[in-house]
Amino acid sequence: MGALHEGHLSLIKRAREECDAVVVSIFVNPAQFAPHEDLDQYPRTFDTDYASLVKSGACAAVLLPRVSEMYPAGITLDRTQQRGTFVEVQGLSHQMEGIPRPHFFRGVATVVTKLFNIIQPERTYFGQKDAQQCVVVRAMIRDLLLPITMRAVPTCREADGLAMSSRNRYLTPEMREVATVLYRAITTARNTNIDGGVQEREDILKPAYEIIEKVAQDVKAKGLPFEVKLDYLSLVDVDTLSEIQILGKSQAAILSGAVYVGKTRLIDNVLINTQEL
Amino acid sequence: MGALHEGHLSLIKRAREECDAVVVSIFVNPAQFAPHEDLDQYPRTFDTDYASLVKSGACAAVLLPRVSEMYPAGITLDRTQQRGTFVEVQGLSHQMEGIPRPHFFRGVATVVTKLFNIIQPERTYFGQKDAQQCVVVRAMIRDLLLPITMRAVPTCREADGLAMSSRNRYLTPEMREVATVLYRAITTARNTNIDGGVQEREDILKPAYEIIEKVAQDVKAKGLPFEVKLDYLSLVDVDTLSEIQILGKSQAAILSGAVYVGKTRLIDNVLINTQEL
Repeated sequence: MGALHEGHLSLIKRAREECDAVVVSIFVNPAQFAPHEDLDQYPRTFDTDYASLVKSGACAAVLLPRVSEMYPAGITLDRTQQRGTFVEVQGLSHQMEGIPRPHFFRGVATVVTKLFNIIQPERTYFGQKDAQQCVVVRAMIRDLLLPITMRAVPTCREADGLAMSSRNRYLTPEMREVATVLYRAITTARNTNIDGGVQEREDILKPAYEIIEKVAQDVKAKGLPFEVKLDYLSLVDVDTLSEIQILGKSQAAILSGAVYVGKTRLIDNVLINTQEL
Repeated sequence: MGALHEGHLSLIKRAREECDAVVVSIFVNPAQFAPHEDLDQYPRTFDTDYASLVKSGACAAVLLPRVSEMYPAGITLDRTQQRGTFVEVQGLSHQMEGIPRPHFFRGVATVVTKLFNIIQPERTYFGQKDAQQCVVVRAMIRDLLLPITMRAVPTCREADGLAMSSRNRYLTPEMREVATVLYRAITTARNTNIDGGVQEREDILKPAYEIIEKVAQDVKAKGLPFEVKLDYLSLVDVDTLSEIQILGKSQAAILSGAVYVGKTRLIDNVLINTQEL
């Protein structure tokens, strides 16, 4: 979707190491936004993006399609009015990020199918930061029998742990300071399992809820002009994305969440019992 | 779906004339059947099919996948329980054949996407007999930006006009005799427009309704052990598949319908103001 940062560039670098030529698509995809979401406000920074792609020396071509080229039947954000062809991965799209955004993964699966058909890549690279997206795209590649290998590349982080994201630019310096709360929460929760052997969902997640609640209270107590608010925490099986009540000793899982810092919604995740999505 | 007849062979012959090599898929696709439909009863005649493909000399390979290969996430006919990736062409799937079979074109679009990804053909051949299917697949190819050219091949007919269909084998000799009723009805209706310049929907369709009603009455009067029953008649724009009230002088249209002869549901169509779907 453009607004490139180090995270995107790490995907491109990894792709260049493994492939003869890398094609980067930049397309802010209307189908993954709902009418009330930030499609119009989503950062569009093509000149800077292009400069950093050239500087990377890793990218053979940039695909920059028009909305009318990607959606020949047109596209409206009101899902009930949409016409044309859509791709949906049932069973993996309705939970986690799909709860506040029921349209989202249908939009992603649809646009990714189209991009695959245009480029016909041998390999495709997605960022682990969007963990559910990785699981959805991997399932779609398998289900649609696409001859494509997917790589999920680990999340790039700032020095203090904040996951890189195009939406981080919305954060004021005061917000930026507390924005690491989600990463601290989920890594602490993960460590209760990895270091402490805790397996019960509630016990694993408890410290994460506490860390977020404490930061929310601190921000309030200091009278800062924004709120920190938990959206959700999730502990799911990596294949089915169903919530885990008791984590198996070698069960691969995603521990993830979303937190509002002011109006900006930040997401992050860590993996348990697996290295790559 | 196999159970090959002259209609299928005409597609293969046309493909062989235009392409270096022809791959034929034979797959009875569960996703386009509802739980109450004839999935288990659908004719499976691979040995005969294979013999006629060999005899045709036009087919380089036959793709005969297993259900578990085509649906890695499994497939159940109960749509509410389905998991995995599905493709849907919105706006063209809910009318005509989509009214009695709301699951049908989603099943078709999904399996055709998979077959395309396996074979990666340059051209694909569909029979005009399934007119709505032609329109849906053509739209899907356009919307998903598939690098494939589609040809809709005219319907093959028996000497008396009956459209060839795998389901014709369900007809008893007495049923077979009256089964041409639908073709006679829609060609007569088409001629009111082509020869008589009639443009009003009701006036175009009137003789078709009358022909079908007369045959239904005759069958009843003769005490034959089955009924002839109209399911629907339809006059739609070829691009939007929306019902036409007044047919424009050069508006491309599909005049189609479905009729039950006993328990066998027969469909057929003719085109107006266009040669190919």
